Amino acid sequence: MKIPLLALAALTLTAPALADESKPAPSPNEIVEAAPASDWVTIAPSDLIVMDLAPDRDGNKRRVVIQLMPPPFSQGWIGNIRKLAEAHWWDGTAITRVQDNYVVQWGDPDAEDKAKARPLPAGLTSVPESEYSSSSSQIWPIIKSAIGHETIGTPPPAHPVVLKDPYADSSLDWHGWPIGTDGGRMWPIHCYGMVGVGRNYSPDTGSGAELYTVIGTPPRHLDRNIALVGRVIEGMEYLSSLPRGHGLLGFYRNPEHRVPIRSIRLGYEASGLPAYQYLSTESTAFAKYEDARANRRDPFFIHPAGGADICNVPVPVRRAP
Amino acid sequence: MKIPLLALAALTLTAPALADESKPAPSPNEIVEAAPASDWVTIAPSDLIVMDLAPDRDGNKRRVVIQLMPPPFSQGWIGNIRKLAEAHWWDGTAITRVQDNYVVQWGDPDAEDKAKARPLPAGLTSVPESEYSSSSSQIWPIIKSAIGHETIGTPPPAHPVVLKDPYADSSLDWHGWPIGTDGGRMWPIHCYGMVGVGRNYSPDTGSGAELYTVIGTPPRHLDRNIALVGRVIEGMEYLSSLPRGHGLLGFYRNPEHRVPIRSIRLGYEASGLPAYQYLSTESTAFAKYEDARANRRDPFFIHPAGGADICNVPVPVRRAP
Repeated sequence: MKIPLLALAALTLTAPALADESKPAPSPNEIVEAAPASDWVTIAPSDLIVMDLAPDRDGNKRRVVIQLMPPPFSQGWIGNIRKLAEAHWWDGTAITRVQDNYVVQWGDPDAEDKAKARPLPAGLTSVPESEYSSSSSQIWPIIKSAIGHETIGTPPPAHPVVLKDPYADSSLDWHGWPIGTDGGRMWPIHCYGMVGVGRNYSPDTGSGAELYTVIGTPPRHLDRNIALVGRVIEGMEYLSSLPRGHGLLGFYRNPEHRVPIRSIRLGYEASGLPAYQYLSTESTAFAKYEDARANRRDPFFIHPAGGADICNVPVPVRRAP
Repeated sequence: MKIPLLALAALTLTAPALADESKPAPSPNEIVEAAPASDWVTIAPSDLIVMDLAPDRDGNKRRVVIQLMPPPFSQGWIGNIRKLAEAHWWDGTAITRVQDNYVVQWGDPDAEDKAKARPLPAGLTSVPESEYSSSSSQIWPIIKSAIGHETIGTPPPAHPVVLKDPYADSSLDWHGWPIGTDGGRMWPIHCYGMVGVGRNYSPDTGSGAELYTVIGTPPRHLDRNIALVGRVIEGMEYLSSLPRGHGLLGFYRNPEHRVPIRSIRLGYEASGLPAYQYLSTESTAFAKYEDARANRRDPFFIHPAGGADICNVPVPVRRAP
């Protein structure tokens, strides 16, 4: 965990002509950097939402970019979120809650006060609880082929790898997202940076107007209890490093501590947005990356784990080169 | 995730005379609050280290309290840490690294520069890598009795519960700490807030002068690769909410961004320190708490998980009442 400065310098000087067996094993990041362009999938601007916060007290801009999930996941809520963004509904709302090791939450600070609450746009859908998960028939063939590969080995097995998981029969990365599954259903997983839909007590499932992201230990007990709609792919630090709130559940007691949201826009309506790509979870590079996350062979490590938690294998995302 | 304000108000008004079956199931926090005084274990001041940072830019004090691990874990490094604190060695050092979703790290900013590095006190031990884990003979009887209880059920099983774990044959809380185990060894686990010892490449194991704490997804691949020595029990937010560094590995590029450490003291030498207690992991209250973390039956939840990750069952710690 210290930067081994001298050792790093030595590695940089290693001549590329050396035989393979004398090279250190690549780190997960090095595997990602070496992935061919064809293994990267460009994210459509219509699948991005862009949150511009008020500048920080030093005047620095704070932009958070969120990727929305593809079908079959949470499409009712995601449809609402698109409508809310198109209506510019969030402009002038705020981050209201920052609970350490749990979530940052944003929306209308007056949502619970009927007299002051900001009216929602027309046409939002009320989504049933059954939509917290989807039929897993699409991933059954994958799981069947992966049986016996729960412990990741050397050499890298055929991907995808199905992981041991205390919150699911098994979990895997599929079409770019962390997914849990039992016999018949599959559902997205609460990893760091995932974005979900605040709600009141069941049977309320939330409209999508109130959103949160995970800033600590994956709160996996929320899987299948709340809709997940996406993940933060850039600017996470503007949320995770906010001062913690000290009211009930981490809400800011003093309204002045809330962080103003200047605007939330769909990607195609946001100014100056670069193109983003994620590493295809169906690519060979991803299988190697996942294997390396589970079995660290790069020089710092002395005891490869032999397994991994799905949330400790984050799907690589980058700005398109 | 929204605060269900009206619903909470209704719960508060529930008459205590109602029959048990009409009461909502208690939340994990409510179980902890109801634990008898005899289930709480007072932490000796000699097992605490207290880090006072420079005040923040608004002049607010920032104190971080760390509990050191008991035998048999990491005692060589912990002995060094006690010597460093007794020598007031850290006074005037700094937090140098904040990497989002990974670690905050502190120590001598000039440690890698032999000309400028702060000399270490005499008498520090060089600890071998074999000390990253310990013989698990002490926990074998517990594991044996717990076989068959991997999936936590209703009613709460006899504690302790042995959890399904992708990074260990199994994991459990033992004598107040999260522990992984395989056939013959056991080791502490990298959960949020755990404190470890920075090191250079193997066979270096670090002296204890360079420390870090986890501020994101549990980096379980570090288990058995780095020494863990304790956990933050108060003031975690002063570390987790620091601005992220943008140099290599999250080190602050600009030395002015480092956070000055005024002092680090053992608990008995720190001024104004309250008494702290943790909930005995061998208590019935803890078994109920762990069961409730794995099977949320309190009103917000509709789908209990039926399992838990060891890092998502944090050992409760409080100021002594």
